[in-house]
Amino acid sequence: MKELKHWEDFEVGQVVSYGPYEVTKDEIIDFARQFDPQPFHLSEKFAKSSLLGGLSASGWHSCAIWMRMFVEGWASKCMSLGAPGVESVRWLKPVMVGDVLRGRSEILEHRTSKSRPWVGLSVMRHECLNQNDEIVMTLLSTQMTRVRGARDE
Amino acid sequence: MKELKHWEDFEVGQVVSYGPYEVTKDEIIDFARQFDPQPFHLSEKFAKSSLLGGLSASGWHSCAIWMRMFVEGWASKCMSLGAPGVESVRWLKPVMVGDVLRGRSEILEHRTSKSRPWVGLSVMRHECLNQNDEIVMTLLSTQMTRVRGARDE
Repeated sequence: MKELKHWEDFEVGQVVSYGPYEVTKDEIIDFARQFDPQPFHLSEKFAKSSLLGGLSASGWHSCAIWMRMFVEGWASKCMSLGAPGVESVRWLKPVMVGDVLRGRSEILEHRTSKSRPWVGLSVMRHECLNQNDEIVMTLLSTQMTRVRGARDE
Repeated sequence: MKELKHWEDFEVGQVVSYGPYEVTKDEIIDFARQFDPQPFHLSEKFAKSSLLGGLSASGWHSCAIWMRMFVEGWASKCMSLGAPGVESVRWLKPVMVGDVLRGRSEILEHRTSKSRPWVGLSVMRHECLNQNDEIVMTLLSTQMTRVRGARDE
């Protein structure tokens, strides 16, 4: 097993890429039925007569798909301690049936927590793109990663 | 069928409440397996030995559950046009197996779009609470709602 990365293994300006993830009609409808039951996410017929002209994924579904890719491309490869939240989630373009998404994340800031020196903080800007290289979503997060060798308490 | 509300039917200071929603172990694991496969969301055994002492839901799962409640309590009752994104999502407390969530939303600002006068904008602050009245999550959004009688284009 490859050793997991720590906070020190990253730096400002570093970019990670991940994906792809193909979005199916069944998945859009399943997610919407469970979490976002609005007609433009549920009914192909309704969606076809709407502005977008087709079924689009819930914005929260886009976030969840992005997270799946981000876990595979980043969080599962380092001593991730999660994130306390996210900022500025922008759903810029609809995510439609058959879209193939991918993502990239850039580290904007990089420091350790003052109160918990074993916690490294990386402010990251994330982009989610479709198969036409259009940015469908952006968001910011402060990812927490374990600092190598730092004591827990 | 009850008539759907328009933007004019709401005002600053108005609060809507919604829920409840019980979070099960199976749902936490299913969501995590699909979208956030990190050990603290997947394995009860791992989670019991972690800081939280038990299985907790993905933050994105909390968002999705909140959305489900918000659709039932708000979006399905008005001419909702969705939201272009969300701000300041804060996961303040873990959402654990068996938690019963509910939510409330307050309208902070209320105006119509300058470029699209048929679109009403409501900046809302949302809270998601558990059965102990602890706020587990907060977020902000600008909800778009149709203005009564305004022309489409």
